[in-house]
Amino acid sequence: MDYLKLAKEYNTPFYIYDFDKIKERFTMLKDAFKARKSQIFYAVKANSNLSILKFLASLDSGFDCVSAGEIYRALKAGAKNYKIIFSGVGKSADELKYALEQNILYINLESQEEMLLLEQIAKENQKVARISIRVNPNVDAKTHPYISTGLHENKFGVDIESAKKMYLYAKNSQFLEPVGVHFHIGSQILDISSIHEASVIVAKLVKELLALKININFFDIGGGLGVCYKDEQEPNLYDYAQGILASLQGLDVCIGMEPGRFLVANAGEFVTKVLYEKFNDKKRFVIVDGAMNDLLRPSLYNAYHEIKLLNKNSEESLCDIVGGICESGDFLAKDRKLAKTKAGDLVVVKSAGAYGFSMSSNYNSRNKVCELACENGKVRMIRKREDYEDQIALELEYLKD
Amino acid sequence: MDYLKLAKEYNTPFYIYDFDKIKERFTMLKDAFKARKSQIFYAVKANSNLSILKFLASLDSGFDCVSAGEIYRALKAGAKNYKIIFSGVGKSADELKYALEQNILYINLESQEEMLLLEQIAKENQKVARISIRVNPNVDAKTHPYISTGLHENKFGVDIESAKKMYLYAKNSQFLEPVGVHFHIGSQILDISSIHEASVIVAKLVKELLALKININFFDIGGGLGVCYKDEQEPNLYDYAQGILASLQGLDVCIGMEPGRFLVANAGEFVTKVLYEKFNDKKRFVIVDGAMNDLLRPSLYNAYHEIKLLNKNSEESLCDIVGGICESGDFLAKDRKLAKTKAGDLVVVKSAGAYGFSMSSNYNSRNKVCELACENGKVRMIRKREDYEDQIALELEYLKD
Repeated sequence: MDYLKLAKEYNTPFYIYDFDKIKERFTMLKDAFKARKSQIFYAVKANSNLSILKFLASLDSGFDCVSAGEIYRALKAGAKNYKIIFSGVGKSADELKYALEQNILYINLESQEEMLLLEQIAKENQKVARISIRVNPNVDAKTHPYISTGLHENKFGVDIESAKKMYLYAKNSQFLEPVGVHFHIGSQILDISSIHEASVIVAKLVKELLALKININFFDIGGGLGVCYKDEQEPNLYDYAQGILASLQGLDVCIGMEPGRFLVANAGEFVTKVLYEKFNDKKRFVIVDGAMNDLLRPSLYNAYHEIKLLNKNSEESLCDIVGGICESGDFLAKDRKLAKTKAGDLVVVKSAGAYGFSMSSNYNSRNKVCELACENGKVRMIRKREDYEDQIALELEYLKD
Repeated sequence: MDYLKLAKEYNTPFYIYDFDKIKERFTMLKDAFKARKSQIFYAVKANSNLSILKFLASLDSGFDCVSAGEIYRALKAGAKNYKIIFSGVGKSADELKYALEQNILYINLESQEEMLLLEQIAKENQKVARISIRVNPNVDAKTHPYISTGLHENKFGVDIESAKKMYLYAKNSQFLEPVGVHFHIGSQILDISSIHEASVIVAKLVKELLALKININFFDIGGGLGVCYKDEQEPNLYDYAQGILASLQGLDVCIGMEPGRFLVANAGEFVTKVLYEKFNDKKRFVIVDGAMNDLLRPSLYNAYHEIKLLNKNSEESLCDIVGGICESGDFLAKDRKLAKTKAGDLVVVKSAGAYGFSMSSNYNSRNKVCELACENGKVRMIRKREDYEDQIALELEYLKD
């Protein structure tokens, strides 16, 4: 990749995504499950750029959305409505109504309260809502507390017994149709035994439901597959699939998957430019033009991203790579060995394709950066860099009085 | 405040700011320093809404900006260029050039490297850049590590000895004019003795500079005054001022201040609506339509905001107040005593005027909320709620091919 040329043409900072890599990951995952019916629903929240969604739709991906905004994006990008599912603990009445109007595949319910609201909305609109229930199997995903979701102490899903009652209720409702079951125990999971453990628990529920004449078509195993940011060993996909398949013996279901990070994290890079190098006392800081507003993961989760410096200097020493935002929490990496830099050197932050741009903000009135795609060796823009006019567009009219 | 009426008219969630309260805080601070020349430079990063900037400009406030975007905003809101200063460790060449073109009051330099770059840009544009130097006095502000900035281990400013060399260099440069000195040791400081300690150190530097015939007009004491979020005792402004004034005996300087949080934090509220209440095992969750993308402080800093529930129920119990975003890190408050809620109840998150909207994002493809102002008892909109079209505006054109 000729980063210098890209920096010259598009300015810095920017995100760049390798579409061929996304395709490779998509195919790997799909292939691992080829022994059974399966459907990938890409978790839009990881990276919701329209061109990425369009590309994934062309690979026959479905979409896991967690807001009406994400459903809107998926449809805009050409997704089929019958390949969209809607998840999340905080769906508003307006969002549920929108999902019903769009006739999406199913809605993952997260509570009994939500089910009753959905039933009411379906009734008002004389529709039947296809539903799945997110089961919280009380399994520890052994990941960062902020992204662990499968324990009862988390806000997500309902326990097995409550789910069973909900399915029975739904079966008897004129306006609800149970079609799936769902679990997702956390993100960035490296030890897949916890997913298998959850799968066994949920498969047992499906069998019990069958005995109650409730037929589950979609067995949605969520996402959460860990990726390599530093030196993590990614789960073996064959083992992952075999463990799930083993738990499903005797069941005729389509396996739903909701990968987000797995498909796009390693396919994306955040490219930024050195502004200054400075020493405070003995501490070395490399100040770049990208910052926590562009890539929040290091500040929010203390997440590790590999840093590649593009220059030919060999004199390495420890430094923090920081942005220009006025807080000490604004860093991209800490205590890294990096060659001496000069202004203008490019710094590539690796594995930034997931939860990078999608979490970015305008903090410090900084413009959101541009996004590029690389496909078959060709680079193109897929989101324009913001400008100051964009930032104030929704405020300007209120200045007059 | 008739929140129900506002929720009906503007929908939820929204931010609302009390302009009268902002004025009261502004006046309190200004008055505390009335014995001397002083100038308040509002720290725009705390809340950069154009109408707030315009209101502060009408009170004769100056503006402390940390990006060209903030300077642009201040000017757009009617600020005088000679009341704008420019701070931050990561100013790009383009930003420095813009600041020179706008002929702002001065630029707070954070490193020698930045000074040399500014000199070069000033030379290229045949201008003289008025500068101040941010001194890092190595004083512990005793606050959250992410917002502590006055230690050598932080990226901010330069140490006293380096500053002295920089002033000497600037004095001899045709394109630089030293006019100020600056320090800012952290945010949300409750124990002002650390600020006074820093002030003594920096005042000593100013005297040494005077002896070198370098005349400092602006003694910029930064911001960082703590406010009450829960039960904190706010610093006494009289004591604050007296300590600063005492350190300045014998010096003829204008005291610059950069309050952000102090002026707007307690003047703002974030209003959100209950969607669902649910129990997982024994844990109670109140799920609201506001989330971490709207107000990041609880997730990022584990910050405390007081929560006020607007209903008449009296049966209280502990709960987490969480948003609908798909991570466990999405919460507005944890382990709070709250009455039983029902869908539609309003929840007011107090003291959300600073670092609330300005840090908000579109995570989970959620629209940024609207902002309201209350002045003399009248409420008006000062930023329109975003819609999905706004979110995709910079991506849509790249869908065609």
